[in-house]
Amino acid sequence: MAAYDALMAFQRQTEALASIAGRLGWDQETIMPRGAAEQRAEEIAALEDVLHARRTDPRIGEWLAKAEAQDPVAEAQLRHIRRSYERTVKIPARLATELARLTSRAQGIWAEARANEDVAAFLPVLRQVVDLRREEAACLATDGALYDALLDDYEPGATGEELSALFGRLRPRLVALREAVLGADNPPAPLSGTYDGATQTRIARELALAFGYDLNRGRIDTSVHPFSSGSGSDVRITTRISERDPFNCFYSTIHETGHAAYEQGIDPAYAMTPLGQGVSMGVHESQSRIYENQLGRSRAFTGWLFGRMTDGFGAFGIADAEAFYRSVNRVSPSYIRTEADEVQYNLHVLLRFDLERDLIGGTLDVADLEEAWNTRFAADFGVAVDKPSNGVLQDVHWSVGLFGYFPTYTLGNVYAGCLYKALRAEVDGIDAALAEGDAGPAVAWLRDKVQRHGGLMEPREVITQATGTAPSEAPLLDHLDAKFGEIYVL
Amino acid sequence: MAAYDALMAFQRQTEALASIAGRLGWDQETIMPRGAAEQRAEEIAALEDVLHARRTDPRIGEWLAKAEAQDPVAEAQLRHIRRSYERTVKIPARLATELARLTSRAQGIWAEARANEDVAAFLPVLRQVVDLRREEAACLATDGALYDALLDDYEPGATGEELSALFGRLRPRLVALREAVLGADNPPAPLSGTYDGATQTRIARELALAFGYDLNRGRIDTSVHPFSSGSGSDVRITTRISERDPFNCFYSTIHETGHAAYEQGIDPAYAMTPLGQGVSMGVHESQSRIYENQLGRSRAFTGWLFGRMTDGFGAFGIADAEAFYRSVNRVSPSYIRTEADEVQYNLHVLLRFDLERDLIGGTLDVADLEEAWNTRFAADFGVAVDKPSNGVLQDVHWSVGLFGYFPTYTLGNVYAGCLYKALRAEVDGIDAALAEGDAGPAVAWLRDKVQRHGGLMEPREVITQATGTAPSEAPLLDHLDAKFGEIYVL
Repeated sequence: MAAYDALMAFQRQTEALASIAGRLGWDQETIMPRGAAEQRAEEIAALEDVLHARRTDPRIGEWLAKAEAQDPVAEAQLRHIRRSYERTVKIPARLATELARLTSRAQGIWAEARANEDVAAFLPVLRQVVDLRREEAACLATDGALYDALLDDYEPGATGEELSALFGRLRPRLVALREAVLGADNPPAPLSGTYDGATQTRIARELALAFGYDLNRGRIDTSVHPFSSGSGSDVRITTRISERDPFNCFYSTIHETGHAAYEQGIDPAYAMTPLGQGVSMGVHESQSRIYENQLGRSRAFTGWLFGRMTDGFGAFGIADAEAFYRSVNRVSPSYIRTEADEVQYNLHVLLRFDLERDLIGGTLDVADLEEAWNTRFAADFGVAVDKPSNGVLQDVHWSVGLFGYFPTYTLGNVYAGCLYKALRAEVDGIDAALAEGDAGPAVAWLRDKVQRHGGLMEPREVITQATGTAPSEAPLLDHLDAKFGEIYVL
Repeated sequence: MAAYDALMAFQRQTEALASIAGRLGWDQETIMPRGAAEQRAEEIAALEDVLHARRTDPRIGEWLAKAEAQDPVAEAQLRHIRRSYERTVKIPARLATELARLTSRAQGIWAEARANEDVAAFLPVLRQVVDLRREEAACLATDGALYDALLDDYEPGATGEELSALFGRLRPRLVALREAVLGADNPPAPLSGTYDGATQTRIARELALAFGYDLNRGRIDTSVHPFSSGSGSDVRITTRISERDPFNCFYSTIHETGHAAYEQGIDPAYAMTPLGQGVSMGVHESQSRIYENQLGRSRAFTGWLFGRMTDGFGAFGIADAEAFYRSVNRVSPSYIRTEADEVQYNLHVLLRFDLERDLIGGTLDVADLEEAWNTRFAADFGVAVDKPSNGVLQDVHWSVGLFGYFPTYTLGNVYAGCLYKALRAEVDGIDAALAEGDAGPAVAWLRDKVQRHGGLMEPREVITQATGTAPSEAPLLDHLDAKFGEIYVL
């Protein structure tokens, strides 16, 4: 017990310091003076050095060898600490430093290459990033499965093989649905006009509250890319304002509220411990996506939102709640993942998953990446990529070394499909409440079944226990077919 | 050289981590969600542990023993590091922890005692704070001078003896001036009416810019008590809005701009080193006070501010710029230091200095503090303290263990007097520019003579070198006599 207590006390301080690092990142993306970037980089580097020293502290190994878990919570704590420690000590300090430096530089090169539509300018540094991440994966992988070693950092327990099979079952039905929808002859009308920023901000706040966001333990700001940040009693979200696209603001807000509600919903007893955070990127994304899509884009909730928008903006060119529902769920051709609708979004992710798995696996050379991207895009989306910023240069992820992260987006959607099916079966009155602008009944179920557990169970186990069955792609596909089949009268 | 470089690299990381601690404090006082207080306390405690371990790292002693300074800058760096290290290692970890815990608790007890006008509720914990600070001082003092050992942390090189002599020369003339001013038969009219908060915020921003605040390396927010925070390229200030008292907002802003301009004005080559911060509390306060009083409350600048207020608020009951100048500089009886005017402010500080010096010296018992306060107040201010929140309970300082800090407020005013005299002698066109809302010429001189040097020289040396003569109380007293003698036609 002494070893366990010492380990947990040490870990608690590490969690507190990591939380500070998150807070600095939030500050940087929202309110930091522009001229402070260099100084901030030095501050973050100093804190990261402290964190790295703590995470590789040999005392952790000694404590782990002696610590005994007295209950399932302690068992889960030790499991997290052991996994993290074993990963961290396998990576040479030299490699960790090199990766940090390289990816910081690569992000700048990527941004410039994207602005200049110049793939060639990005590829050399991307090759270095891929090489270093492969080197890292080789340090981590016990069985030679390089991609799995990286994936494990974002979705513990998942494998490329298993995801590939899952995604293989998704892809044909998504391609078919996309084609059917875009071929339908009665597309919904898009939004037009401009929408006052202050009113958007006010409605965004109402939306966050409707989905249970606790402003006493959070706050809402704006940033270039919306995000959620923090755990426990300080979980902040951001949104963005575009006067021509209020849905961007509103659905970003609901999405980030989903992430934040997960963090805010975790049992306070787990605060400042490894259990005090969302268990994986996939489960995290399941919360943000079920809030945003299954609930936020439902007929019931959009009916309420239509009223709030009419109150806020006056008549805005959409005739009634039904036309508004169709407009919110409009599917239109686009090259950009982050702007994609429910139907097309996962096709974007699947494309990146296959390409990055091949890059890390060594079966796709960086030199061939653009062609591979464009070929796959034409196959799945039926149009040719018109410029690199709409293609291989569109996402920041690979430049900062995020390989193994993309698939968690779709895994989150799959999990959201499973959770939504179970939620509808178990909870009455969801739509009636949503129609009043209240996601309470749905959110309460998610809090009880998923959020409060934090890192207690393995990711798949969380979904399995919440839904009573192993995760599968079927509920998501059924939901999409039914919803868009009705909207587009397929 | 190797030892010096190693020491500076280590120190640089410590400065970066300390800067993070400052940023967390800023966040807490301005924008942090209310519910996050407990978590934040844990984060700050974890970071303070890291900082304490670094500041007492025995390697610093080894590097200091071997390091050789190749130039005056390196010499100053070593002087700062040595002083700080020698202080820190003299204090037992047990005492440092106890002090941190006790003062955190004592602050809460003080706040409640003040709200309840209950001195007796505060005295037991105050006694503990005094005892622990005396114990700390005994660890630090080489010659038995307990108060000087504490003072040295805020104003290196200053002694209680010397300050006592300086303040002894100030006091009779300030008491006499106060009596004469408050006995005059033509007091200026006070401000009346209410003043829109958004307009105050806009004018506050203009004021900060007028005094050279660089918003590219800072930002302005609101907090309960205005403050300035940070060094280098991220120096933030806060102000507060009271609809009935716009001067509070405006002169707080100019005051904090003075502090921030000092930090922003330091040679960037010193960033993230011990030289990269204001050299002492006294010199810091000299900047905030000369900005606020000698410049900001001058006839020339108030003339411009009168125009800006008239533009912003319309006619607000003050007839003309001359009446406005008198109103800005109105002296009225008050019990509260933080609300005091230029004439009375230092009398408040002198009172605290004498009392706290006696407390730490052991010649005044905590049990007798209130009576000592009230007696002194009646003597210097000519009125009896009506309630503890207007007397001995009014300031937070002693509850958090700040003994030795108060005198730096008045020392700052003395330094400001010296600097202003030299500034007027050396720079032309100050008033003409101030009358246009531009403190540029004055600020440029201060930046060159004081601010850019950061911690390069000892505090007294900064003032001596800037003014060409050793600091004295005479310029401040002459300035006050002349200014208020004219306003009140004495």
